[in-house]
Amino acid sequence: MGKKKAVLAYSGGLDTHCIPRYLQERDYDVVAFIANVGQDEDFEENAERARQIGASAVYVEDLRERFVSEFIFPAIAGNAVYENRYLLGTSLARPIIAQRQVEVAREQGADVLSHGATGKGNDQVRFELAYAALAPRMKVIAPWKERDFLDRFKGRRDLLAYAEQQGIPVPVSSEKPYSTDENLMHKSYEAGMLEDPMQAPPKDMFDLTTSPVDAPDEPEIIEVHFQNARPTKVVERASGRETSGDLELFVRLNELGGKHGIGRVDMVENRFVGIKSRGVYETPGGTILHRALRDLEGIAMDREVLALRDGLAPKFTQLIYNGFWFSPEMDFIHAAFRQAQDLVDGRVVLELYKGGVQSLGRESPSSLYDRELSSMDVEGGYDQTDARGFIRINSLRLRAHRAILRGADRE
Amino acid sequence: MGKKKAVLAYSGGLDTHCIPRYLQERDYDVVAFIANVGQDEDFEENAERARQIGASAVYVEDLRERFVSEFIFPAIAGNAVYENRYLLGTSLARPIIAQRQVEVAREQGADVLSHGATGKGNDQVRFELAYAALAPRMKVIAPWKERDFLDRFKGRRDLLAYAEQQGIPVPVSSEKPYSTDENLMHKSYEAGMLEDPMQAPPKDMFDLTTSPVDAPDEPEIIEVHFQNARPTKVVERASGRETSGDLELFVRLNELGGKHGIGRVDMVENRFVGIKSRGVYETPGGTILHRALRDLEGIAMDREVLALRDGLAPKFTQLIYNGFWFSPEMDFIHAAFRQAQDLVDGRVVLELYKGGVQSLGRESPSSLYDRELSSMDVEGGYDQTDARGFIRINSLRLRAHRAILRGADRE
Amino acid sequence: MGKKKAVLAYSGGLDTHCIPRYLQERDYDVVAFIANVGQDEDFEENAERARQIGASAVYVEDLRERFVSEFIFPAIAGNAVYENRYLLGTSLARPIIAQRQVEVAREQGADVLSHGATGKGNDQVRFELAYAALAPRMKVIAPWKERDFLDRFKGRRDLLAYAEQQGIPVPVSSEKPYSTDENLMHKSYEAGMLEDPMQAPPKDMFDLTTSPVDAPDEPEIIEVHFQNARPTKVVERASGRETSGDLELFVRLNELGGKHGIGRVDMVENRFVGIKSRGVYETPGGTILHRALRDLEGIAMDREVLALRDGLAPKFTQLIYNGFWFSPEMDFIHAAFRQAQDLVDGRVVLELYKGGVQSLGRESPSSLYDRELSSMDVEGGYDQTDARGFIRINSLRLRAHRAILRGADRE
Amino acid sequence: MGKKKAVLAYSGGLDTHCIPRYLQERDYDVVAFIANVGQDEDFEENAERARQIGASAVYVEDLRERFVSEFIFPAIAGNAVYENRYLLGTSLARPIIAQRQVEVAREQGADVLSHGATGKGNDQVRFELAYAALAPRMKVIAPWKERDFLDRFKGRRDLLAYAEQQGIPVPVSSEKPYSTDENLMHKSYEAGMLEDPMQAPPKDMFDLTTSPVDAPDEPEIIEVHFQNARPTKVVERASGRETSGDLELFVRLNELGGKHGIGRVDMVENRFVGIKSRGVYETPGGTILHRALRDLEGIAMDREVLALRDGLAPKFTQLIYNGFWFSPEMDFIHAAFRQAQDLVDGRVVLELYKGGVQSLGRESPSSLYDRELSSMDVEGGYDQTDARGFIRINSLRLRAHRAILRGADRE
Repeated sequence: MGKKKAVLAYSGGLDTHCIPRYLQERDYDVVAFIANVGQDEDFEENAERARQIGASAVYVEDLRERFVSEFIFPAIAGNAVYENRYLLGTSLARPIIAQRQVEVAREQGADVLSHGATGKGNDQVRFELAYAALAPRMKVIAPWKERDFLDRFKGRRDLLAYAEQQGIPVPVSSEKPYSTDENLMHKSYEAGMLEDPMQAPPKDMFDLTTSPVDAPDEPEIIEVHFQNARPTKVVERASGRETSGDLELFVRLNELGGKHGIGRVDMVENRFVGIKSRGVYETPGGTILHRALRDLEGIAMDREVLALRDGLAPKFTQLIYNGFWFSPEMDFIHAAFRQAQDLVDGRVVLELYKGGVQSLGRESPSSLYDRELSSMDVEGGYDQTDARGFIRINSLRLRAHRAILRGADRE
Repeated sequence: MGKKKAVLAYSGGLDTHCIPRYLQERDYDVVAFIANVGQDEDFEENAERARQIGASAVYVEDLRERFVSEFIFPAIAGNAVYENRYLLGTSLARPIIAQRQVEVAREQGADVLSHGATGKGNDQVRFELAYAALAPRMKVIAPWKERDFLDRFKGRRDLLAYAEQQGIPVPVSSEKPYSTDENLMHKSYEAGMLEDPMQAPPKDMFDLTTSPVDAPDEPEIIEVHFQNARPTKVVERASGRETSGDLELFVRLNELGGKHGIGRVDMVENRFVGIKSRGVYETPGGTILHRALRDLEGIAMDREVLALRDGLAPKFTQLIYNGFWFSPEMDFIHAAFRQAQDLVDGRVVLELYKGGVQSLGRESPSSLYDRELSSMDVEGGYDQTDARGFIRINSLRLRAHRAILRGADRE
Repeated sequence: MGKKKAVLAYSGGLDTHCIPRYLQERDYDVVAFIANVGQDEDFEENAERARQIGASAVYVEDLRERFVSEFIFPAIAGNAVYENRYLLGTSLARPIIAQRQVEVAREQGADVLSHGATGKGNDQVRFELAYAALAPRMKVIAPWKERDFLDRFKGRRDLLAYAEQQGIPVPVSSEKPYSTDENLMHKSYEAGMLEDPMQAPPKDMFDLTTSPVDAPDEPEIIEVHFQNARPTKVVERASGRETSGDLELFVRLNELGGKHGIGRVDMVENRFVGIKSRGVYETPGGTILHRALRDLEGIAMDREVLALRDGLAPKFTQLIYNGFWFSPEMDFIHAAFRQAQDLVDGRVVLELYKGGVQSLGRESPSSLYDRELSSMDVEGGYDQTDARGFIRINSLRLRAHRAILRGADRE
Repeated sequence: MGKKKAVLAYSGGLDTHCIPRYLQERDYDVVAFIANVGQDEDFEENAERARQIGASAVYVEDLRERFVSEFIFPAIAGNAVYENRYLLGTSLARPIIAQRQVEVAREQGADVLSHGATGKGNDQVRFELAYAALAPRMKVIAPWKERDFLDRFKGRRDLLAYAEQQGIPVPVSSEKPYSTDENLMHKSYEAGMLEDPMQAPPKDMFDLTTSPVDAPDEPEIIEVHFQNARPTKVVERASGRETSGDLELFVRLNELGGKHGIGRVDMVENRFVGIKSRGVYETPGGTILHRALRDLEGIAMDREVLALRDGLAPKFTQLIYNGFWFSPEMDFIHAAFRQAQDLVDGRVVLELYKGGVQSLGRESPSSLYDRELSSMDVEGGYDQTDARGFIRINSLRLRAHRAILRGADRE
């Protein structure tokens, strides 16, 4: 019988260059799995490097279309905003990477899944919860939680030394004073100099968005069209250019948002492992979509459905952030949210300018809004004198409460 | 015994000029109550007009300081945002007006409370629920819900004709194609031309904020200091100017926000009476405070307390919006929120620019954030290998669920 | 063109005998609609009486099967318990009655829907919200909210006098000192002598259940089987008797529960219109099913799905109680709950004795419970040392909080 | 400098007899801490045994009064019911034991806290989260999560052998085929033969309650009085016997409940560590109090406050169950719940019979219930015609929704 196989989520970071050797030392045959979720990366170069390190097979998988359709759009439709600001770009990419990694492991007959996420962060949890949900019998090797690995590699210097000693080709990258993660949804920045929460990010740090100060001095008007709460078309008013198709449309929104400096967030957030962490994010297209869809919901979604959806949105968000994308509780929420999104159709007109997204107008064929005064008559109308009974009955409890307080001398 | 007295919340609108006469026709002695909640209004002129119409007494009450301290600040601390965007400027002003109106009614020995809000809106509900909570035995006369009044006054024209016939002095105001409400927190615009949700507001409509396009081309840096989630000081970095005192500080934030075009919202919202309504709002200072405090909470509030607070925030918001400020359920929420706000201390650095408010940094003496790596060691530390058990135990349910699905052939 | 038609929900109470005449006075052709939802009533006699009063058509509709399948079972599956105790027997019957009444109105070409529920209760709301949801253009005539009707009929005496004067045949019923409502799910008692919340109900009041004191001295063991959270079979252990079929099974549970004195509740509840009201209920079969299904969920439902479901159950309950069965928000909840009920299969063994229902055992093919120690090994197992990391990471926040309090001298 | 000290929560189980020696092997001076939370135990014998094993100090602490006042009563007032049935007897005892253990450790200058709870259960979490919250700098030694301890002691046999070898005096107890935990609130049974969820508990297993079958054939009537949702007095109607004082009253309710077979629960529940577990509980007095207080709330608590409280109760319950009694989120909930409990005063009449607790009547000085029809008139009354407007406005959304569906051909 041959060696056991491990499929490694290969990100191209310094550590994922060293981890294959670590797995080989443990007598594993290593399969490198490289997911294209829209990050700016030379996939071929990375694949080549994986082969040089001795990967027995290398997969480069383009997951972008599915990432947009099945992860980004549902998250935006579900109003997923972590701790009032973070749009979950990194969180959403982890389950799709893990999902395809598991499929690759099955194709390869592997029994180990491995990743290079650290033991202090959220990503390790997201990877491993997805592994557990999708492939509970597969073993997980996460070197950054292994005592021997931690003792051996105390910092970048140790990794570099090891790489040199092992003849591992290391990409000559200019070391940045922070670490990043990138995909179609966003680019994130954390750690290093950003660990001081009073230290503003350096101006040249941002990759996806122009600084609002440098963004065009002219506002730009666009329309976003939706059907069942999913974007179907983006129209740029000035040029008349139209973009549709999930991936194409989202890429175009990223370009437009990036041009106008939209979607920068700088915050301190709470990780699942209980640590507070400072993160800086750029989410240009996602921010535009969030604003547009919230605006459309105002006109096209029933008030109580909106309230129920928003009541579950924090849980939905927490599940995404904490790594429970593949879970029975997520299925519960998805079922409800799909129902809520039914008939959320229409279009929203937005102004993009200097970091801001402003709604200018919206319309929906599935709203009674514009027919209110007329057709409301048909449907039974609105009689202002009805409001008297409505208020009087709503106030019964309050009048009773006052009388109780008076009785108890608490007034 | 003399005539019965009615205390009228006198807003200075055309209808509140006519309502006193309507009450007098019903044989009431009318007391005009004019609340100063920060709106741009000539209070003396309005008071004089009330006297001319025959008010037996006129009260002009400056409620601004209390409005900021007891209504605006708690609402912002409680993360009150209606339907993801509206900061509740109008909703917050109603209970304080009603509260003082009831006090005046008690001083005057009146037994009727009256207001000029329409029967289709939220304000009637807010006024009357507050009346019911504070003075359940007082009678309410709301002409816009009275059949005879509605039949008589079908539009502005009827009111004007009546005013002329009755010799009521009507202010010569240029009629606007929308209606407005203003106070320290915000100015709102609705109805008229704005009823078409696709019709963008006219550029010259906004009163409190410069258009982002016309706002200064230079970003401005300010600091907002907080103690127990209440703002205590605003520092303008360039000039070093410091402002403290609840009212002064809030007014200064309004000026700064207004100058930089901050806090414009255009949305369709759901009224308590079940109607969808388009509203446009300017909330300059409130928007800055919201952003600042949410940012500080990231560093200074416990994760689970934040989650619980945010879980109740929609209810808190709904209660404010729907007019239940004075209610036992609001007391319940206030008790919890005061607890959550304890030790939310520190300062936030913000950049104001072209309609945007961006956090640049924050610090809090009551956060472990900056001491994490060091003092966390003292407190028991963070051991990355702990994460393995954490994840494995969190994933138990997911592994079980997969096995169940496999057993049921649902995989 | 002929007269306008009104379809009246005809309950057989004294007032619904008088209401047809009231409608006829208003020049309506009256169609009597009698719903059989399992109440103990002589439907033919009532139909005959309706004809005598001059109904142009009389419908007697057997809704029992649908009532059990589409209303009772989903309510129990959704853990609908109002204010910790009431199982919603009356609330559930109203929407199905209204639904069929609307269908009859459509068949008859009627444009008015009428009912005899009072203006202080919940039923008026439930009927009329269902009418609005299903037939928004139909007019509603609810005499007990009409000023003229209220002025004319101030009590039972006035109704009797009117009946006599109009030659309306009145059933010779012994007047009870409370009012009741009955259907397959329950019988309720309220008003009259029960309005004193300290007055215990008379022992001979209860119709559906034997008093626990008089119930059999021997416990009885039954099994209830479920599939996807719906009961499929009841097995009586002593006799081996098996009952299946939605209606048959539920009727049998009512008999068993009734025999053992199960399901009596005496409580003060809060009506939708803001009044507190004392109600006494008998829900024999429904109580058994509730207990059985909650027990099965323990073994067959995922913890987090259970928590989410129970988090929405109060809203689900409130919607049923308040009359929003047909509403978009209810569709939202149904979608989620159907998902939660998937694979909730198995059986529960219960002991019925003297008013009590006690679980003795349960099993589920779709649970890992019994395979835990073995198959958990297969799936990755449970390693007790994992708990250390789990706890340490869960405690991080608490250690930090203590340090903050110490820093603020609050310890 | 002397040896380091460890304070051990000494339960008297076989393992806590062996753990001191295990700690001594690690060179710790062992302090035995025995908490009296109302369990049936020979405290002096246990203390003596601890001394024999070599404990350098032995504490026997009577925590009963505080347990009732500060843990049991607030839990019942907060409607804490885990997964619809479990009243949290064990969960509530853990934080108070840990709290006093930490105090003892401080008095003794100890730096280690130890307990004998296993690595698969909830108690380990509850102890250690409380330790972390109260004494974050103290080290925790939990042998049942230590690899060497687990390897050494694979079952009861190994513990017995070790005890014999070490000369540890072992109590001659007849081994039961399940394990138990007992305190003032309840006695629990789990594991062993109970692990089969279809296996009914043996009839002679129960210690605190008579079997309903053997309970008195006569119902017994009692009254429970409350102030601010805390019980203040129990009156037995037949004898006129009155009991007050937190501890005395609760003990008396335990006796009464035990006599009548009240409070047995048999269920499968979800542990915090993700395992499903079968538990059988007896909670006689707690069950009576729960029923009584829920009944009183019906009459004495505002509807919306009740709904908010019940909306948070699952979280409150989860926090107790999972061990977060001492946490900032619990402080948040306590603050809200104290507010909700204000003026929940009055008394409830209950019938105890054969395992059942039935409310017969209730009254509250702080309720408007009984004054409704009269004083409601004074306060503004209830006008049935008001209900029309109330319903019409509540139905606006539903009418609109139907029109939308019709427009979309979904009807």
